[in-house]
Amino acid sequence: MKGWDERHAYSVCLTEADRAGMVRMAFRTVDPEDLDYYEKRLQDFGVKYEVVPEDYRRGRALRFMAPSGHTVELYHEMEYTGNLLPAVNPAPWPEGLKGIGVPRLDHTLVTAPEPHTAIQFFQEVLEFRTSEVLVSSDGTPLAAWLWQRPAPHDLAIVPGRAGGFHHAAFVVDSTDALFRAADILAMHKVRIDYGPGRHGITRGTTIYFFDPSGNRLETFGGYSAYQMDPDSRPVTWTQDQIAQAVFYYAQELNETFLSVYT
Amino acid sequence: MKGWDERHAYSVCLTEADRAGMVRMAFRTVDPEDLDYYEKRLQDFGVKYEVVPEDYRRGRALRFMAPSGHTVELYHEMEYTGNLLPAVNPAPWPEGLKGIGVPRLDHTLVTAPEPHTAIQFFQEVLEFRTSEVLVSSDGTPLAAWLWQRPAPHDLAIVPGRAGGFHHAAFVVDSTDALFRAADILAMHKVRIDYGPGRHGITRGTTIYFFDPSGNRLETFGGYSAYQMDPDSRPVTWTQDQIAQAVFYYAQELNETFLSVYT
Amino acid sequence: MKGWDERHAYSVCLTEADRAGMVRMAFRTVDPEDLDYYEKRLQDFGVKYEVVPEDYRRGRALRFMAPSGHTVELYHEMEYTGNLLPAVNPAPWPEGLKGIGVPRLDHTLVTAPEPHTAIQFFQEVLEFRTSEVLVSSDGTPLAAWLWQRPAPHDLAIVPGRAGGFHHAAFVVDSTDALFRAADILAMHKVRIDYGPGRHGITRGTTIYFFDPSGNRLETFGGYSAYQMDPDSRPVTWTQDQIAQAVFYYAQELNETFLSVYT
Amino acid sequence: MKGWDERHAYSVCLTEADRAGMVRMAFRTVDPEDLDYYEKRLQDFGVKYEVVPEDYRRGRALRFMAPSGHTVELYHEMEYTGNLLPAVNPAPWPEGLKGIGVPRLDHTLVTAPEPHTAIQFFQEVLEFRTSEVLVSSDGTPLAAWLWQRPAPHDLAIVPGRAGGFHHAAFVVDSTDALFRAADILAMHKVRIDYGPGRHGITRGTTIYFFDPSGNRLETFGGYSAYQMDPDSRPVTWTQDQIAQAVFYYAQELNETFLSVYT
Repeated sequence: MKGWDERHAYSVCLTEADRAGMVRMAFRTVDPEDLDYYEKRLQDFGVKYEVVPEDYRRGRALRFMAPSGHTVELYHEMEYTGNLLPAVNPAPWPEGLKGIGVPRLDHTLVTAPEPHTAIQFFQEVLEFRTSEVLVSSDGTPLAAWLWQRPAPHDLAIVPGRAGGFHHAAFVVDSTDALFRAADILAMHKVRIDYGPGRHGITRGTTIYFFDPSGNRLETFGGYSAYQMDPDSRPVTWTQDQIAQAVFYYAQELNETFLSVYT
Repeated sequence: MKGWDERHAYSVCLTEADRAGMVRMAFRTVDPEDLDYYEKRLQDFGVKYEVVPEDYRRGRALRFMAPSGHTVELYHEMEYTGNLLPAVNPAPWPEGLKGIGVPRLDHTLVTAPEPHTAIQFFQEVLEFRTSEVLVSSDGTPLAAWLWQRPAPHDLAIVPGRAGGFHHAAFVVDSTDALFRAADILAMHKVRIDYGPGRHGITRGTTIYFFDPSGNRLETFGGYSAYQMDPDSRPVTWTQDQIAQAVFYYAQELNETFLSVYT
Repeated sequence: MKGWDERHAYSVCLTEADRAGMVRMAFRTVDPEDLDYYEKRLQDFGVKYEVVPEDYRRGRALRFMAPSGHTVELYHEMEYTGNLLPAVNPAPWPEGLKGIGVPRLDHTLVTAPEPHTAIQFFQEVLEFRTSEVLVSSDGTPLAAWLWQRPAPHDLAIVPGRAGGFHHAAFVVDSTDALFRAADILAMHKVRIDYGPGRHGITRGTTIYFFDPSGNRLETFGGYSAYQMDPDSRPVTWTQDQIAQAVFYYAQELNETFLSVYT
Repeated sequence: MKGWDERHAYSVCLTEADRAGMVRMAFRTVDPEDLDYYEKRLQDFGVKYEVVPEDYRRGRALRFMAPSGHTVELYHEMEYTGNLLPAVNPAPWPEGLKGIGVPRLDHTLVTAPEPHTAIQFFQEVLEFRTSEVLVSSDGTPLAAWLWQRPAPHDLAIVPGRAGGFHHAAFVVDSTDALFRAADILAMHKVRIDYGPGRHGITRGTTIYFFDPSGNRLETFGGYSAYQMDPDSRPVTWTQDQIAQAVFYYAQELNETFLSVYT
């Protein structure tokens, strides 16, 4: 599955399972040679990995376990399908979309028992940069928002169980579209966990909701969005402001945010 | 006080008091002779009223107690000031507004111990029409949204203490403006009670929040808004759907909605 | 035909004809007795009229010629169908709309050889109120925006041929919806005459475009919209500012505005 | 000068001159060592360049003439100032902004007598990738939209005079913000060249307008925006669709687009 504006074969695979959660997550490298570069980097840091020769409509991948307890893959080759628009003289969007009609996957938020260690791994070994960080009173990172695209984040890590999946987010890029998405969710009696609202961290407008399996999904939007420059310094949030950092309007965490994930 | 686009002297008066709440509410008649018309109507229905010869920047008013326990006034004359724009060749809005910058007051929601009786009074004596009504399983109106302007409502009545003031709402007429309003409230650490969200009833987009005195205020918006025609039949909501009728997205009432008002 | 949120049987009838244009326009009275009231008023002002006993899904109408050369009807009874939503516990909008999906007709703009006389007729005989007026250097009204609903206008009259039809406008009530409408028009190669833009007069956001017959249609929106109060004084525009009064952004009239209508 | 959300010292310098136009444009490299990499690349391709040891709040730059006749600089070091928000627990935007309040510079469009050659230079020597391209009937690129950030474009090249400056664009990222920008421009009688509208190419929503010196500026927005992936293939526009490619709604070029630039 994928959003209508994604150009490769898919961004999400759903598989049958006994319980909800995320089996693994995968990142695509910019260039083919980057895959070799990161293979060497895994070796240099002593990270055990497995080479997966191919997967559904996808080429070789490096598979390894991150210190957060998540199976991570790096790959470069994936079947190029184009988006739903013609490649020549396209309209700005395809008519006839159903439902919320998201254009693309945006990011994933996962949990780790020792976020500090996991964050360091993604920063040092995989060279993610940090857009925002939540720190304890002694300055230790409790959670971090990490990026490769110059977007607020591709991956975020917060405290929780090893291998935990907090949510995956899809782009909904205007406030009208956000309300329309909330309307559609509510028309279909989908359980909304939070929102419409805004995160202090990333400035992202948001709706958290649960799919029928119990996985949390998010619409993530761009009202007053920013772009990261590799030289941009991370924004810091202090633990005493965690409530507004997470839910800027409610100014308090809801009971599900830190306890319910898969 | 008033919104920037209101053309008469004021729509809200704040007075010093020992406790929060609404002292009285007043409705302006369309034409001067309507005031005489309603005076006769009050007499015909045996409603005791007092004539207030004048008030701050305002002419004669009829003052009476509604069965909901609220002091209500009818008046016609009020000093005409115009809005904040010039009367000749105006721009679409005035530059330099501060804060949320609402254009006008929209409606008020009040509580009544016997909503049915209060609703009937406003319908029969004051000729309000009903846009939407919440009914119990035996069809009794539990709450009603009433109008004179062809807007979703000018006044709503829900169950609660006699004379209770649930909220007054000000127009914020786009989803971007709604998020901007929520941002400003949150920047200033205002306690947000609910929202951004949407009501099932009236379709209105909303933020409920509290002013420093404890009165609840609302931003009320027009995404997918409707206009009432005098011949439009009321929309009905059944009691088993009350949660979504009130908070369309949350699909559940928050604990404050029915318990906290002034 | 009608918009999805209109509650009576129809607001627009298309009939086969040799040329484009508007055959007649009709206004619905608020109450049944208003029809008698206006019949007497037509008599008092010596306006010749015809009684049309019934029309398609509609009751008795008074038909007469306005000084602008337009056939006008007043009626009250029309079949009540409700909008596209259920009458009980409705969603805020119906899923599955196609195209621009306008909720309702908003207003019509027509031409008159002597606008001053036509404007006076609608004001005095039919009791329309004026929201905005464009005046010549000697103060004569050249064009007026007239209302019965407390909206910016139900009918506008500008200089031109007797019986001329400039455009009919349908509500598109957010800026996202306006861009979406423009996208859809452009995807289908519809000839856009002007817009997206804004009128200085009425503050309305707008797209003018032509239907296949050559009639001009408009999307009319509410960003920073206002409501008229019967006591609101008209906004005045001076003839030297006509360009910005009409096309607030372009600040100049396009060649078609005053010359192309049906 | 810079937008409120830019984190380095400036993105635009205005200097006194006898005529309007762009003196030079500069690109910042992601990493310090990239500057050495591109220096070697300039040498390999035989491009003459000058080393500018430092400039206002900026470090070493490589300065050279592109085949389009534009002076181009590459640099890495620039004073880091942060944006207008605090680095710890920031609000989503700063209160008190005046005017349109753009967050950042987005892109520049320039002219070249032989666009094909200039496009090739930026692609081969400076490794820009192509998001969209306009081709003649024989397939020759007439204009191209080129990027380094995964945005629709950082630089576009269209046919015209050597060294010509068509416009610089600043982000305005919602349709409400776009209308607000157009309102502010019109309130201040700024000459609007085109818009609000949309480009077929890049899907960008747009207003073209002229600053007092005669340079064209643009608001560039994100309604239905896309992100480029390095592996995304360019969108192609054919010359017979140039009008809609440029002005998606008007479906025709205005007389100024290809003739007026500085």
